[in-house]
Amino acid sequence: MKSKKGKRELILEESAKLFSEKGYTATSMKDIANALGVEAASLYNHIQSKQEILGVLLLSISKKFYSGIIDIKNSSYPNKEKLKEIIKMHIRVVIEHQNISSLILRDWKHLKEPYYSEFVEKRRVYIEVLKEVVNRGVTSGELKDINPLIVLNCILSSLRWVYDKNVYLNIIDVNVVELERNILNFVFKGIDSEI
Amino acid sequence: MKSKKGKRELILEESAKLFSEKGYTATSMKDIANALGVEAASLYNHIQSKQEILGVLLLSISKKFYSGIIDIKNSSYPNKEKLKEIIKMHIRVVIEHQNISSLILRDWKHLKEPYYSEFVEKRRVYIEVLKEVVNRGVTSGELKDINPLIVLNCILSSLRWVYDKNVYLNIIDVNVVELERNILNFVFKGIDSEI
Repeated sequence: MKSKKGKRELILEESAKLFSEKGYTATSMKDIANALGVEAASLYNHIQSKQEILGVLLLSISKKFYSGIIDIKNSSYPNKEKLKEIIKMHIRVVIEHQNISSLILRDWKHLKEPYYSEFVEKRRVYIEVLKEVVNRGVTSGELKDINPLIVLNCILSSLRWVYDKNVYLNIIDVNVVELERNILNFVFKGIDSEI
Repeated sequence: MKSKKGKRELILEESAKLFSEKGYTATSMKDIANALGVEAASLYNHIQSKQEILGVLLLSISKKFYSGIIDIKNSSYPNKEKLKEIIKMHIRVVIEHQNISSLILRDWKHLKEPYYSEFVEKRRVYIEVLKEVVNRGVTSGELKDINPLIVLNCILSSLRWVYDKNVYLNIIDVNVVELERNILNFVFKGIDSEI
């Protein structure tokens, strides 16, 4: 490990792995040190606390989701295409950062300030933009006249299993583009073969 | 509280509520006794342990899911209709037993034998039957030629948010029939307004 920055990155990566396997609460700084083959005390040269690690990890991914959805919102795509782009972006962020993504499902509750407020606010905006795109799509007739809240939950859930380690059926080594195509087809066209 | 059975039922109900709010691990027998306004020691006249409570609760709901899906599987419905009936049954069981349902997402991991094996086996069969119905529906042309694993995860997730207290947007006081209709439409027809 050459530079201080490199070591910090390694600590973050290893922590994400351990948190996602064992949960934030059950993981100690000693566990992280052991996994890296260093003394626990030496971690504190690079990171202040377990809480800082969780905060940095969760905000890094929540910023990716956030800037992703804001860029799509501000694009000139029609609403239906915006929704497709959001779904693809969401899947890609999750697949590229599997360990951190799985923390979003449960461990965000362990965040303290200032991380907590920023995380919750970014998530609120994300849901808000998604809701707005669905509502506008319904109003413009691009999407069916559906109950937006129920559909929003269904869409978010259809995305969610991709990063839930408690999921019923894990799909290993999936082709991301094929996964995107299948989920988009499911959300937009359903499974019924009749037209 | 008149009979022993009545008291046992009350203990189970109150425990389900507490487990679903605070989690199984964080709930003590004392918490359950307090919520019922009795002495913790008196609970043991009706129930052996916290583990027994969890086991009884989870097996009661897993038996409902199980017998529900087996009856549908053994019916003469075509596969597409079977899938619709499974989705409706699933939603109805969840809505009727909200507190117990939410335990399925996380607290089943705390089950010990003999509860654990029975729960896991019933769940395995449930997923197996669901998979079989989807596969047969695809083979017969009733359903689109889809990746069954991805679609299965999408369907299970679309059902799952209904009983996940960590869900993004809770829908309170929903009309169950309207909820069923919306989820069925989502799963079968998607949200695209173009045919």
